[in-house]
Amino acid sequence: MKLGFIGFGPQAKENIIPCCQLISGVEIAGICEKDAHRRRQAQERFRLDCGYSDYRQMIDDLHPDAVIAACYPDDHYEIARFCLDRSIPVFVEKPPAPSSRHLEELITLARRKRTTTGVGMNFRFAAVSTRLKALASGQLSSISLRHYCNKPTDPFWNYASTLRSFLHAQTIHSLDFLIDLCGPVDELAVFGGDEASVIDMTVMVTFANGQHASLITANTSPHFVFDFDAVCSDGRHISSSALWHMGVTEVGKVYANEEEKRWSEHWAPSPLDSGYQRSGYAGQMAEFLAAVEEGRESRISFASVAETYRCLDQIESQVAGRRYIPKPAMHSLTREAV
Amino acid sequence: MKLGFIGFGPQAKENIIPCCQLISGVEIAGICEKDAHRRRQAQERFRLDCGYSDYRQMIDDLHPDAVIAACYPDDHYEIARFCLDRSIPVFVEKPPAPSSRHLEELITLARRKRTTTGVGMNFRFAAVSTRLKALASGQLSSISLRHYCNKPTDPFWNYASTLRSFLHAQTIHSLDFLIDLCGPVDELAVFGGDEASVIDMTVMVTFANGQHASLITANTSPHFVFDFDAVCSDGRHISSSALWHMGVTEVGKVYANEEEKRWSEHWAPSPLDSGYQRSGYAGQMAEFLAAVEEGRESRISFASVAETYRCLDQIESQVAGRRYIPKPAMHSLTREAV
Amino acid sequence: MKLGFIGFGPQAKENIIPCCQLISGVEIAGICEKDAHRRRQAQERFRLDCGYSDYRQMIDDLHPDAVIAACYPDDHYEIARFCLDRSIPVFVEKPPAPSSRHLEELITLARRKRTTTGVGMNFRFAAVSTRLKALASGQLSSISLRHYCNKPTDPFWNYASTLRSFLHAQTIHSLDFLIDLCGPVDELAVFGGDEASVIDMTVMVTFANGQHASLITANTSPHFVFDFDAVCSDGRHISSSALWHMGVTEVGKVYANEEEKRWSEHWAPSPLDSGYQRSGYAGQMAEFLAAVEEGRESRISFASVAETYRCLDQIESQVAGRRYIPKPAMHSLTREAV
Amino acid sequence: MKLGFIGFGPQAKENIIPCCQLISGVEIAGICEKDAHRRRQAQERFRLDCGYSDYRQMIDDLHPDAVIAACYPDDHYEIARFCLDRSIPVFVEKPPAPSSRHLEELITLARRKRTTTGVGMNFRFAAVSTRLKALASGQLSSISLRHYCNKPTDPFWNYASTLRSFLHAQTIHSLDFLIDLCGPVDELAVFGGDEASVIDMTVMVTFANGQHASLITANTSPHFVFDFDAVCSDGRHISSSALWHMGVTEVGKVYANEEEKRWSEHWAPSPLDSGYQRSGYAGQMAEFLAAVEEGRESRISFASVAETYRCLDQIESQVAGRRYIPKPAMHSLTREAV
Repeated sequence: MKLGFIGFGPQAKENIIPCCQLISGVEIAGICEKDAHRRRQAQERFRLDCGYSDYRQMIDDLHPDAVIAACYPDDHYEIARFCLDRSIPVFVEKPPAPSSRHLEELITLARRKRTTTGVGMNFRFAAVSTRLKALASGQLSSISLRHYCNKPTDPFWNYASTLRSFLHAQTIHSLDFLIDLCGPVDELAVFGGDEASVIDMTVMVTFANGQHASLITANTSPHFVFDFDAVCSDGRHISSSALWHMGVTEVGKVYANEEEKRWSEHWAPSPLDSGYQRSGYAGQMAEFLAAVEEGRESRISFASVAETYRCLDQIESQVAGRRYIPKPAMHSLTREAV
Repeated sequence: MKLGFIGFGPQAKENIIPCCQLISGVEIAGICEKDAHRRRQAQERFRLDCGYSDYRQMIDDLHPDAVIAACYPDDHYEIARFCLDRSIPVFVEKPPAPSSRHLEELITLARRKRTTTGVGMNFRFAAVSTRLKALASGQLSSISLRHYCNKPTDPFWNYASTLRSFLHAQTIHSLDFLIDLCGPVDELAVFGGDEASVIDMTVMVTFANGQHASLITANTSPHFVFDFDAVCSDGRHISSSALWHMGVTEVGKVYANEEEKRWSEHWAPSPLDSGYQRSGYAGQMAEFLAAVEEGRESRISFASVAETYRCLDQIESQVAGRRYIPKPAMHSLTREAV
Repeated sequence: MKLGFIGFGPQAKENIIPCCQLISGVEIAGICEKDAHRRRQAQERFRLDCGYSDYRQMIDDLHPDAVIAACYPDDHYEIARFCLDRSIPVFVEKPPAPSSRHLEELITLARRKRTTTGVGMNFRFAAVSTRLKALASGQLSSISLRHYCNKPTDPFWNYASTLRSFLHAQTIHSLDFLIDLCGPVDELAVFGGDEASVIDMTVMVTFANGQHASLITANTSPHFVFDFDAVCSDGRHISSSALWHMGVTEVGKVYANEEEKRWSEHWAPSPLDSGYQRSGYAGQMAEFLAAVEEGRESRISFASVAETYRCLDQIESQVAGRRYIPKPAMHSLTREAV
Repeated sequence: MKLGFIGFGPQAKENIIPCCQLISGVEIAGICEKDAHRRRQAQERFRLDCGYSDYRQMIDDLHPDAVIAACYPDDHYEIARFCLDRSIPVFVEKPPAPSSRHLEELITLARRKRTTTGVGMNFRFAAVSTRLKALASGQLSSISLRHYCNKPTDPFWNYASTLRSFLHAQTIHSLDFLIDLCGPVDELAVFGGDEASVIDMTVMVTFANGQHASLITANTSPHFVFDFDAVCSDGRHISSSALWHMGVTEVGKVYANEEEKRWSEHWAPSPLDSGYQRSGYAGQMAEFLAAVEEGRESRISFASVAETYRCLDQIESQVAGRRYIPKPAMHSLTREAV
């Protein structure tokens, strides 16, 4: 399968392209990159005859079986439109589009063209996500997810606000992880918010199936943190830390030394575990390329992130709404409800 | 100081009385216990001449300098009234009273009698709580607290509902811990709730000072869990697990190997740490007895838990309110706010 | 049971006496302490009519059922002799005597007088020790124990050398833990040793039953560390850290998610665990006092640490021997054996 | 750079080849594999025109700039000889040769031909190894390394014994890690050994520079474990677990909350860390290919593992020697030394 890549930044270089290289039959046909230095890097590393700075030309020249882009959100939107117009399967890093409106347009186009699409939602495929789904199956009651990071603290990716930059760069992952686990969202309430460059908020998500989640997120933490605790109604408690550790413990189960209390089962990958399975990058690329090959919609299609975008919008509007109102409407009403 | 104890159940036997024994000058003058077997146990263990089954008689006989009770909430209320009427300092295990109304009555009485009171809020004095307060000082933005346990799943302590049993047995601790840290509560919203014997809820707390907290709690977990993550606006992240581990990490700090990223500082007590400092029981009893000696109000007075009770009532009424309403008022209004 | 205590230093105050107070029927009849300030402290804390500075007088006055001493090793020896001469059961903190010769004398005397003795070997009773014995039962192949601490770095307790101070203050615990687990020692070889005030050595212990252990110990580590990994011949691996965590994993066992690999079972005490069970102090005092009551030899009798002393002597003589020999005899011979 | 690969088993497929693909300018010119199914797999995955089953033919056809082999030890020896005879740089997975004699021959040949060689000693390049070297620099006193695994339990790779299979498959890594850290070995003593298919031994290593190490290893543990504790003479203690966590703590350092005791600094890679840096595979391939390009000896040359082989032989002979001697010579001499 001939692949054309657009963008040779760190994410493409370290995760997306290496994962594609691990998949059988993949040919890195061309890499398009506007920056001359990076373009030369890409050419040398993959011994490509020719480097492109215009993706349109690359696509016209190479006729790739699929296009894979890791750029800015507005580029993603344009590239996706260009590819879908030509019925070329396209995968874009997150965020796939700068707004819900743009995303909806792409979803409609992809449906009309019956063309495979994909978005870089690697957390859905992380080793701990797969295990969580199996272990919580049908019994999940609630989940608390801590997603801390240290950026953005300024607007980037051509977004007008730090808040939207944060939502589309960070929250998109944790929210999508929750929606992938629990399904469509019924209600959403934001606590905390942003102040100057500091974002610190808890998003309470109630799902249509009755489950609820607390998404606790901030841009003030030195490292990337992605930890969760899931509570099952049958007395199973599943926790995870850093996509690396998992713990499971059950009411009434008999553990080592014939004891029931204070024991749990823990999982961790091998010290020698390398590659991209654990972080979900391998699974995400494998799913997209398999979908291209089988001519079907991928599990990470543009359509599959519509609900995530809808919720990101809700968060943004709740926070933005609160920013100008001394006492938020929601809260004073809450008080009456009490 | 002559102490009269009421109730010789596990909490008195394993935590309250041993902590008092560690304090200089304390005399275990008498132990009152209705159960004949336990009464004999108490007499033998402390080589007491006489065992009491009626606390009134014990108090009249021994004229203790303070009374310490670990019974049921309605007993606590009665005992406290009896002691306060006689201006005898009194400490009761949590919950100090079966309802806010009862508690208010005791607070008024204690004020009128200018008598020292105390409640068993040991988490305020836990080793990790003390460190959290020092480390987050003035900069706390939000805190997420996971408080999981496996009981109650049925009404107990003469309460009419499992929910109130759970709130007064478990949530009282975690909520009080948050209020002790952040001060008076401005708003409170409950997500999830109870269904049959399963309680699984997240309580979002907004404090008057603008900080917010997520209290994530359930009765479905095999073990007692008490873990938190605190986010500071200056880029400090403080986490803790099991009242045993603490982690602190700061944006921009230079750690070992001259690195800034992916390092943090961790604290754990000595393997040989024993006694009651870590869990806060020692601190709680020391504070009460010091207050008695100095004739002052204790930091764990009945009045000091009034805000906690007010919030427990709010949680109860929100959950109870939702139980009969298909779509909760708060939520539909939230939607409008969006 | 009337107990007379000798020495009111931190170990007596924080661990030994509190553990005794928790045991039914124990009376703290008297505390002897040479230091006037500490003696007053002890008197006040336990409301004792009279404070003793001479243990002989205290014993003659009070006729205690047992004597419990936490002083210096040469005091322990003298006190034990005094008590055993009078057939009074006696417990001493470790080390029970300043040398093997002194210990042997005490063992002989105790046998002749058929009097109960005890030594403060709390690690034998730690929560993880008990579980290790149950889990490794009959299948232990080897154990690696890391025992790090930060003192002594100078001679203390009237010992002539830092090395013996270290061996009798620290190594006595870890070596006794291993001997309690594996039985009599066949061979012992020391690697590393002492240089100036730094002690850093690995003691290889081969037991009569064929098991072997590596005891890795140093006085250069900021904290007290007591971690182990035990390997069983049936494919069970048991690890422990800080007397607080335990991990067990077995070849071929099916864990959560129907997986065999990379899972293990973990144990940790409750966050609220307090008191002295976990560290073994409670078990040690309970065993001694039970033995006194039942008129039998205790499991922590003077005789029970004879093997430990013999091995401490071997370590000392190997290290001391090497200190003056450029190329240690053992090693050059080892080379020939190869 | 044109690379010819020999062997397309899991190690080549999952680690060696992907790491090479990540390096700039690398061309996977050909893959030789005897097994027809795997050969087809390799051809498809890398879209190679032609699959080779004879490495001689591949090398003659393609004239690769370097050859990279991941086969059996006797294959490695033959391939290396073939390549070195033709002055073609060659990298082989460990073990590079079935015996020290074979390895010496290759070292001599490589020197004579002035040709770059490499061996797959990835642990030298692991993220924790690099940090350990920086942190312990010049102050290391001793290190304890636990290296547990679950195979081999039978002879493999054409070796005659399980012991040598284990030494050349597993111990080679941990021993090489220690020698890379501490330099040439002065003395070596083995405790424990093999019995039926169970190997459980502790190898005490004394280095020429006076440092010592305990290598604790067994084939009875369900998972791969690679944990260490390093003690520095200046009061720094460095620990690591699973090539994933690192802890550093220092005597006298002031940590968070202005405390000196019970704190340490911890390192862990990002949850999203993927690729081969952490496990050292990336560093190993980068070093070899850089050495090829620069026409110099690599840091992982055949010569660089000579000391490791010498020590593996010593271990084998000590264990084998003991197998027939009821009471090992070394031990009885040790006793006299005492």
